[in-house]
Amino acid sequence: MSTLSVSSPADFHVHLRQGPLSDLVCPHVRLGGFHLAYVMPNLSPPITTTDAALQYKSRLEKIDPSIEYLMTLYLTPDLTPDEIRKAKRAGIVGVKSYPRGVTTNSDGGIESYEAYYHVFAVMEEVDMVLNLHGEVPSDASANIHIINAEPSFLPHLKKLHARFPRLRIVLEHATTRAAVDAVKSLGPTVACTITAHHLALTVDDWAGQSWNYCKPVAKFPDDREALREVIREGHPRFFLGSDSAPHPPPKKSTSSPDHGCAAGIYTSPILLPLVAHLLESFGALNMLEGFVSTFGRTFYGREAAATGITARTVTLRKATGSVVESYAAGDEGVVPFWIGRDLGWKIVTE
Amino acid sequence: MSTLSVSSPADFHVHLRQGPLSDLVCPHVRLGGFHLAYVMPNLSPPITTTDAALQYKSRLEKIDPSIEYLMTLYLTPDLTPDEIRKAKRAGIVGVKSYPRGVTTNSDGGIESYEAYYHVFAVMEEVDMVLNLHGEVPSDASANIHIINAEPSFLPHLKKLHARFPRLRIVLEHATTRAAVDAVKSLGPTVACTITAHHLALTVDDWAGQSWNYCKPVAKFPDDREALREVIREGHPRFFLGSDSAPHPPPKKSTSSPDHGCAAGIYTSPILLPLVAHLLESFGALNMLEGFVSTFGRTFYGREAAATGITARTVTLRKATGSVVESYAAGDEGVVPFWIGRDLGWKIVTE
Repeated sequence: MSTLSVSSPADFHVHLRQGPLSDLVCPHVRLGGFHLAYVMPNLSPPITTTDAALQYKSRLEKIDPSIEYLMTLYLTPDLTPDEIRKAKRAGIVGVKSYPRGVTTNSDGGIESYEAYYHVFAVMEEVDMVLNLHGEVPSDASANIHIINAEPSFLPHLKKLHARFPRLRIVLEHATTRAAVDAVKSLGPTVACTITAHHLALTVDDWAGQSWNYCKPVAKFPDDREALREVIREGHPRFFLGSDSAPHPPPKKSTSSPDHGCAAGIYTSPILLPLVAHLLESFGALNMLEGFVSTFGRTFYGREAAATGITARTVTLRKATGSVVESYAAGDEGVVPFWIGRDLGWKIVTE
Repeated sequence: MSTLSVSSPADFHVHLRQGPLSDLVCPHVRLGGFHLAYVMPNLSPPITTTDAALQYKSRLEKIDPSIEYLMTLYLTPDLTPDEIRKAKRAGIVGVKSYPRGVTTNSDGGIESYEAYYHVFAVMEEVDMVLNLHGEVPSDASANIHIINAEPSFLPHLKKLHARFPRLRIVLEHATTRAAVDAVKSLGPTVACTITAHHLALTVDDWAGQSWNYCKPVAKFPDDREALREVIREGHPRFFLGSDSAPHPPPKKSTSSPDHGCAAGIYTSPILLPLVAHLLESFGALNMLEGFVSTFGRTFYGREAAATGITARTVTLRKATGSVVESYAAGDEGVVPFWIGRDLGWKIVTE
């Protein structure tokens, strides 16, 4: 197969940041072949109100108006049922829950869910999506660490789904076989995003290599195989959310003894060719459109027809010499995942 | 307790390197309170012959004659039974086995043990020690990765011990509960070294923090607890081998997208205060002398009385303000583990 066409690719988990970094990375969504960005709210300060989300959306639209931005709120104790209703009316799609301290700008994250049940009840009623960063915080006394943080979270997911069966929940950036199995076992209101980089990496790749370090960390080969299997299978509740997370190069490259590197892998500008490369590598290229567009759009009710947006087809061509380039000069800019590697697929038309 | 005395501390696993780095780090053994250094052979090229080991020993003695250096050979297919006998006559104590490609300068390491049985048979006969880096190489197709590399090695250890029950074997730098349990289950000829840093770190500490990255990588809190427990218990076949491994600061601090950081943690210049601090933190300070001197010396037959070397007592004093200092200026030199932290114990006399 030398060309591949995908209708309206959608990235259901992306960090578009703020300030000058936002100006740089926002257009990379389109450059990477995507027409929809489901935007994470973990700015500093986080996006916790409808007004802030709409301001942020307006800012993103000024940077690149050709992308459809789906906005989210950051779950905090200050989020009220009234604010949920207001957000829904304003077209905000989801609420993102971060466990406290687990990833970038998550210091205001949650510690337990019971306190949010009244908010979730209204989300279920008005049909807003709950996006879960599915890790519990590390706790040495309970032998909880970054490798079992996601499996240890799954009982919370199951409990939430049992309590709010009509609430649409997305377990974000799954990295383990346990997570895949859990989501498969749950009802049609529970879905799961998978990143591109977790289809490539294992724990061996980020040990001593900060450019491959992200949260959740990549796990074991068998876990990676479970992610690949569920995509090969074409399971409609598993779809792409890149978790593309830009950081300035010095924050990725340099550790001092008292401060480690930033967690996050940047894939936006190469996303569709990268995903095509990866799916091809494990025999799932025939699932490309489902994984990067149909499945996620269907779960979110964002089929191009349903939203009144004209479907746009992106065509990829098999092409050696499709080498990943840098968008950095010295300490400025961003460096994508797999810099210098040949992806073998190039976007030719859209 | 405000002072502590330890008779003739011995570090049964240390990297003293070569060239100018050797000049810098060799005296740090004594600075850290130790009188015996069991010296690893993974230079470039590795120390594979008696003559090379003796030359290396002579070089180390020129740098700091006050240390007793116990020398080792690097296990390669070229090592012959005759060379083992020659090494034994020359006072070389052990042979170190590295799995291929697992750590610094291990490209010449072993892949399976059967090919070395004739060498091990002579080692058993003449009583040379086999020092094992107990990890198997990663293999994604078999779900072998850096987290289960050590547990996956343990069947090899058990098989070797069954085949050569009188061969003294040391499983080096154990990091898992599985390894502790395995060594405990084996006979009196099998011992185990434990580093200082593995008593402090878990996987969370080296994720994105290259200064805490070493091989074997630190594992889970429960694994760390197993290491602490066996020291608290005062098990005589578990003793200190620091695996102190200096690297130039830029190799520890900086990753490029195509090259990660060096594996290794440097503890030599702070070793005895650090170990005292750690043992105190988990209620094992009463085992300090056993762990850092008696147990290892007994296993190796290096009791001060037996070797004709005058026992020297090192005294530590409880002292706030015992802050870990750097031995680096810019890109030169070395930076110890826990730089800037107060160990709370200071060497006062020896």
